[in-house]
Amino acid sequence: MTRSTIKLASGHQMPLVGFGLWKVPKENTTNTVYQAIKAGYRLFDGAYDYQNEKEAGQGVLKAIQEGLVKREEIFITTKLWNNYHQKEHALIMAKEQSVSWGLGYIDLLLIHFPCALTYIDPEIRKYPSWWMDDAGTIQLDKVPIRETWEALEELVDIGVVRSIGVSNFQAQSLYDILSYASHPISSLQIEHHPYLVQKDLVAMAQENNIVVTAYSSLGPQSFLELPSNFSKKATDIMPLLEVEVVKHIARVHNVTPAQVLLRWATQRNIAVIPKSNNPSRLAQNLDVLSFNLTGSELDLISSLDKGLRFNDPGFYLINNPIRIFC
Amino acid sequence: MTRSTIKLASGHQMPLVGFGLWKVPKENTTNTVYQAIKAGYRLFDGAYDYQNEKEAGQGVLKAIQEGLVKREEIFITTKLWNNYHQKEHALIMAKEQSVSWGLGYIDLLLIHFPCALTYIDPEIRKYPSWWMDDAGTIQLDKVPIRETWEALEELVDIGVVRSIGVSNFQAQSLYDILSYASHPISSLQIEHHPYLVQKDLVAMAQENNIVVTAYSSLGPQSFLELPSNFSKKATDIMPLLEVEVVKHIARVHNVTPAQVLLRWATQRNIAVIPKSNNPSRLAQNLDVLSFNLTGSELDLISSLDKGLRFNDPGFYLINNPIRIFC
Repeated sequence: MTRSTIKLASGHQMPLVGFGLWKVPKENTTNTVYQAIKAGYRLFDGAYDYQNEKEAGQGVLKAIQEGLVKREEIFITTKLWNNYHQKEHALIMAKEQSVSWGLGYIDLLLIHFPCALTYIDPEIRKYPSWWMDDAGTIQLDKVPIRETWEALEELVDIGVVRSIGVSNFQAQSLYDILSYASHPISSLQIEHHPYLVQKDLVAMAQENNIVVTAYSSLGPQSFLELPSNFSKKATDIMPLLEVEVVKHIARVHNVTPAQVLLRWATQRNIAVIPKSNNPSRLAQNLDVLSFNLTGSELDLISSLDKGLRFNDPGFYLINNPIRIFC
Repeated sequence: MTRSTIKLASGHQMPLVGFGLWKVPKENTTNTVYQAIKAGYRLFDGAYDYQNEKEAGQGVLKAIQEGLVKREEIFITTKLWNNYHQKEHALIMAKEQSVSWGLGYIDLLLIHFPCALTYIDPEIRKYPSWWMDDAGTIQLDKVPIRETWEALEELVDIGVVRSIGVSNFQAQSLYDILSYASHPISSLQIEHHPYLVQKDLVAMAQENNIVVTAYSSLGPQSFLELPSNFSKKATDIMPLLEVEVVKHIARVHNVTPAQVLLRWATQRNIAVIPKSNNPSRLAQNLDVLSFNLTGSELDLISSLDKGLRFNDPGFYLINNPIRIFC
């Protein structure tokens, strides 16, 4: 099995295929991560918001203790949540996140959203629910992106983190960071699938040596299990795995539709972080570098684009939307 | 004729309908502005990049000298071009722009694009051609948006400018400015017509007390006269003035299709800045506050949305695109 990596602007190598920890229940996470390492996964994509960092770290540690892998063969991505954008909070939080993982350092830390919410002391409430405070309202905090970015840079300088980047940022935000960054933006993680291609944003990032990581590569699939305000757009549209073009290309290459969707990304140097609880699908999702789609197959898949975003707080935060994708 | 105004966050009033000076040839500008004032226009929307600020100011001065209007009845919007984003350049440039207008102060100064290009000394080359330097290449400069915004704030403090805002900015850029601004963002000027509705961006701005001004309200119309790399998208699509829905609504209200498109904006508190060289159209464009579209007519027009942007340097700057709308 190919274990292809891509070089980040920081100089570090990142696997092109990883395992996404969003929605992996805490109680299963340690074993899921351990099994994923056995299946060949080397990158784990977590976040404070996923509430399973400690358990994920324990899965990695188990594999290390059993001699399956070394720490330096593993790549940990995690993300800073919206309530901790102030510099002092970001510094403390990232250090605590690294302690939770228990692996000595974080490989890649991303700002989860370009959106600062009022600080909530984790001692009082460890995980803020959705985007809301205790009163059920959304309170923006006035923290410039630069303040948070500079906290991330300091975390690199003191060795807590090796590479830094952002998630859910638009091109204008990236250009602005590029104007003042003293450490490079190594990666941009975005929702990316054939219903939301974001061709220009991908091009802009890649032109600026920012590695794009796709989340929700299978499109609506990732959102079906969520509450209805979040999943509505996903239930209203044909699953990508059932689209005839995708199924046809899968048959041609003797792979699954999911493998086609993942290869469509990786073949354009976009990293992917699928999640699966099913062992055979776990292995299949990792095996998406050993076949090549033709140029016209890639284009055919891209032509499914509908500009359809599923993970949009401007849509699912109904009473008090945060409109960060417009 | 109604001369409706809208209150900016700065506290100043801005007319809801103005006259746009983009593509008005320098040699006609003085007379065009003078005739527009005679026709009832009180807001003129200019920019350094339009290369006709001095001539526009002379048209206003002529009308003032003839007693047609007073300075305080006129509202001048202008914009800072991309090559002057560094604080010292922005300060000098805005003062020089105000001198060109010759009207004592600028009512509203906008950052034209969220994009800093390398400084070109106006003594050496007064107007940079398109987005390129003398070598025909596009050179980004590393100037944070905050530096330019703070120059605008200083221009308010010293009385050169009364209100400040931005143009062509996305929501993320607006949220970031809101986190550090000490003077409010009074207006956001964006491309806005039924082929590019930008519903969420308009909502985000209005929720944050930022008045939206629409440019290119007639859609493709504004771009047909431009070079082919710029106009291609516009020639490929049906003119909005010929779309059956628009023509039908115009007949119902006994107005022109252009008046329908302008009213569709102003009725939603979006200011408009049409341009015309034709005296009767000049008057018609101003008369877009005296009739009301029904809610379902507004929705019908909005449903023409195609997410189709004509003024996109990511499209027309072919060899070295700047991708600021993704």
